[in-house]
Amino acid sequence: MSPNSRLPHLSHARSLLTQDIRAVNERGEEQDASIPAERALTVYVDKRELVTLMTLGAHPEWLVLGYLRNQHLVASLDDIASITVDWEVGAAAVKTRGGIEHIEERTAKRVVTTGCGQGSVFGDLMANVDQICLGDARLTQTTLYAVLNAIRLQESTYKSAGSVHACALFQGDQMLLFVEDVGRHNAIDTIAGWMWLQPPAVQQGGDKLFYTTGRLTSEMVIKSAQMGVPLVVSRSGITQMGLEVAQRLGLCAIGRAINKRFLCYSAPERLVWDAVPAHDALLKE
Amino acid sequence: MSPNSRLPHLSHARSLLTQDIRAVNERGEEQDASIPAERALTVYVDKRELVTLMTLGAHPEWLVLGYLRNQHLVASLDDIASITVDWEVGAAAVKTRGGIEHIEERTAKRVVTTGCGQGSVFGDLMANVDQICLGDARLTQTTLYAVLNAIRLQESTYKSAGSVHACALFQGDQMLLFVEDVGRHNAIDTIAGWMWLQPPAVQQGGDKLFYTTGRLTSEMVIKSAQMGVPLVVSRSGITQMGLEVAQRLGLCAIGRAINKRFLCYSAPERLVWDAVPAHDALLKE
Repeated sequence: MSPNSRLPHLSHARSLLTQDIRAVNERGEEQDASIPAERALTVYVDKRELVTLMTLGAHPEWLVLGYLRNQHLVASLDDIASITVDWEVGAAAVKTRGGIEHIEERTAKRVVTTGCGQGSVFGDLMANVDQICLGDARLTQTTLYAVLNAIRLQESTYKSAGSVHACALFQGDQMLLFVEDVGRHNAIDTIAGWMWLQPPAVQQGGDKLFYTTGRLTSEMVIKSAQMGVPLVVSRSGITQMGLEVAQRLGLCAIGRAINKRFLCYSAPERLVWDAVPAHDALLKE
Repeated sequence: MSPNSRLPHLSHARSLLTQDIRAVNERGEEQDASIPAERALTVYVDKRELVTLMTLGAHPEWLVLGYLRNQHLVASLDDIASITVDWEVGAAAVKTRGGIEHIEERTAKRVVTTGCGQGSVFGDLMANVDQICLGDARLTQTTLYAVLNAIRLQESTYKSAGSVHACALFQGDQMLLFVEDVGRHNAIDTIAGWMWLQPPAVQQGGDKLFYTTGRLTSEMVIKSAQMGVPLVVSRSGITQMGLEVAQRLGLCAIGRAINKRFLCYSAPERLVWDAVPAHDALLKE
């Protein structure tokens, strides 16, 4: 049986990602503005309500799949028969093949993480964080700069409406997927869901790089590690917990990455300094 | 009995808000960097574990108090005998005077909001959002500019370490409280907790203004309304749900507020245009 022969059936209706509104500016003049869409999506697993996610709504089926995966509620794609999203009622109906054991207790413990409320994911993973092996992948500075440039050129809801976080998955300097959402955790869950649906070579994260516009919180580092991705890059900074987890995992966390500048917070041995910029190149920015 | 005679006993040990680390920059050189502290604080109510909050740790006792308040777990300050924070074990012990009824079911339903995972707060408040009356407070442009200037001049962890969100409570152009945290929801919960401990004139929010560096999500708008504050100002933008709730409440939501510029997204009738800036003043920025 081929790995894809039992892929779950995923379906949802497309929806607008931005809303045009009228606002009043500092001169008292009405002006057009664009804001990101934000929808409540209530997830039902075998007709039982699980959680309500606030989302931009670009890829709700991948989001739900990645949420179930990152919450350790489903161990394998085979467990899921279908995910059907209906924006009319703001619901995602998940049909499993065999049900989810002890779903009550497994969704009971709550940890409000910095980046944020992803239930038990923090507690769970910190418990077995040392079991994760991220391999020995390295990153050349040239590739890092190519990644940052690809992000710079990417068309996005952020450019048109702001107020969203973006995440992207890279293999070398090739962008495999770019996802935005009003919730940073939704964006990475969506990537996790998408990865699960790909061929084995894309599913395994050892040779991948994860980019986020958001801060490198413990949650972002943990979820990246859960996907097996050893390289995480952010335009923003890192929090203390994020740093501690990254160091413990040997994950290379790079922040403040804009243009030619960046700060490597952990595992600098994974970086290959093949493109050290000249001082004047930095000054010109 | 005076309203303050039964104030709960609050205690915690002070803790560092930033951590100095060594990072490697784009030239391969080690350099000093400062990152915000981030601590796991597990809240126990009458010895029962409730939730774990990731926090900067500046005002954990106000944070816990505000969390309990915004989650509708305690209706009155009188219900709480003491909150004791012990950073050695990362725990906040809450002693109630009469226990919290049905705490299991009241903390069971989870909504992962955009800004984020504050449990049932969204569902709960949307149910009775129409019962909230925010009064008829107005805001002059002059006062708004004074507020933005006060924020600009405020010393902050953000300036030294980045990666934190700031919230502030104003009465007119006077800053009553400035709070930062790694989680935006923590900052506003901390303000809610602090307000509860103040004299009635400070507790009531009708003449207050709430400032946040974060996006105006539904959660921020809802929590501001819960505190009775009709004016919310942000450096950032607004999400669709945030706008819908603000319009429904008649709450004045102002975003993109930097220097002399801003966008009023809802209830512009609350704004008094007494300081319309000259075009050249805006161009000079």
